[in-house]
Amino acid sequence: MAVVRKLEERILKDGRVYPGNVLKIDTFLNHQVDTQLLGDMAEEFCELFCNCDITKVFTIEASGIAIATPVAQLLRVPLVFAKKAQSINLGDDLYATPVKSYTHKRTYDVIVAKYVLNADDRVLIIDDFLANGCALNGLLGLVEKADATVEGIGIAVEKGFQPGGAELRKRGYNLKSLAIVEELNEDNGMIRFRKQ
Amino acid sequence: MAVVRKLEERILKDGRVYPGNVLKIDTFLNHQVDTQLLGDMAEEFCELFCNCDITKVFTIEASGIAIATPVAQLLRVPLVFAKKAQSINLGDDLYATPVKSYTHKRTYDVIVAKYVLNADDRVLIIDDFLANGCALNGLLGLVEKADATVEGIGIAVEKGFQPGGAELRKRGYNLKSLAIVEELNEDNGMIRFRKQ
Repeated sequence: MAVVRKLEERILKDGRVYPGNVLKIDTFLNHQVDTQLLGDMAEEFCELFCNCDITKVFTIEASGIAIATPVAQLLRVPLVFAKKAQSINLGDDLYATPVKSYTHKRTYDVIVAKYVLNADDRVLIIDDFLANGCALNGLLGLVEKADATVEGIGIAVEKGFQPGGAELRKRGYNLKSLAIVEELNEDNGMIRFRKQ
Repeated sequence: MAVVRKLEERILKDGRVYPGNVLKIDTFLNHQVDTQLLGDMAEEFCELFCNCDITKVFTIEASGIAIATPVAQLLRVPLVFAKKAQSINLGDDLYATPVKSYTHKRTYDVIVAKYVLNADDRVLIIDDFLANGCALNGLLGLVEKADATVEGIGIAVEKGFQPGGAELRKRGYNLKSLAIVEELNEDNGMIRFRKQ
């Protein structure tokens, strides 16, 4: 798990804490992406889930795509990214699940075409961030509608003090987060990680 | 250029033509992604631009990220993806350029944080699709605002019968499109490529 230490050190060095428990890591993960660190994280996910006989890696646009792509390449399976859509005229050739966005204070649909997920699929969900788990629950809803199986969930950075991760583990999902942030302090910029 | 033939064959096999010169390739490129083909395309872009001393690969969310990520990994440089935003309260720590979307019939801003692009950067722009060039011109505007240099533009699929590509070549950009679609026929589904 050397990559976990590397990721934590990078978050300490370049992450910035803002009011409202916001952690910005957009200099190396979700706006500008350090592709060396990305490759290391992808290899780690690959090791964590290589025995799960994954048939597809599944994520949601936009920033999840950067981390999900090299994981799918290493596992030699297709990548599928769900799209965000307005809830009008969605058509019947796709699955849709409503998602509440805390960041943007609105509700949108996540959608996936029916022909890219089916009952034989053993899905690995990959995303960059997990906090309340809203987007992730949207993806889980899509996999369920397709009668496919969720074999694992891989997250780069989890905010352990928000309920998403704990709820998913309680529901029995095989969830692995590389770095888990336990506490953010907006006054002094302190970032504390959960010991793993 | 074996990958060009491979991509053209895949477009002929799985691409679908819809009224209004719409070509859908979302079973293997921009919803579900064939990661084997993706890797081959990334290697091709890498060869085409490896002598340009690229410092950053630049794309726009969302579907450009999947193809730009492995290119940046192979070139061992950071990936930057511009974001789409509403034109309100953008702040002064970022560059913004307005973009007209034909698909969604609205205007939005593409934005990039000032700290991820600077005057020393030699940028390779990568995207999955080029038609009218609206999104691409937005990216070029951002690179210009940052006083950085565009060393090349790599596109997976160009619609050669729409003006974006011709205009960019006329302006002197080093634009390489792997597959160039010359004609689409919505009545019989015919797809014709430009001979390269």
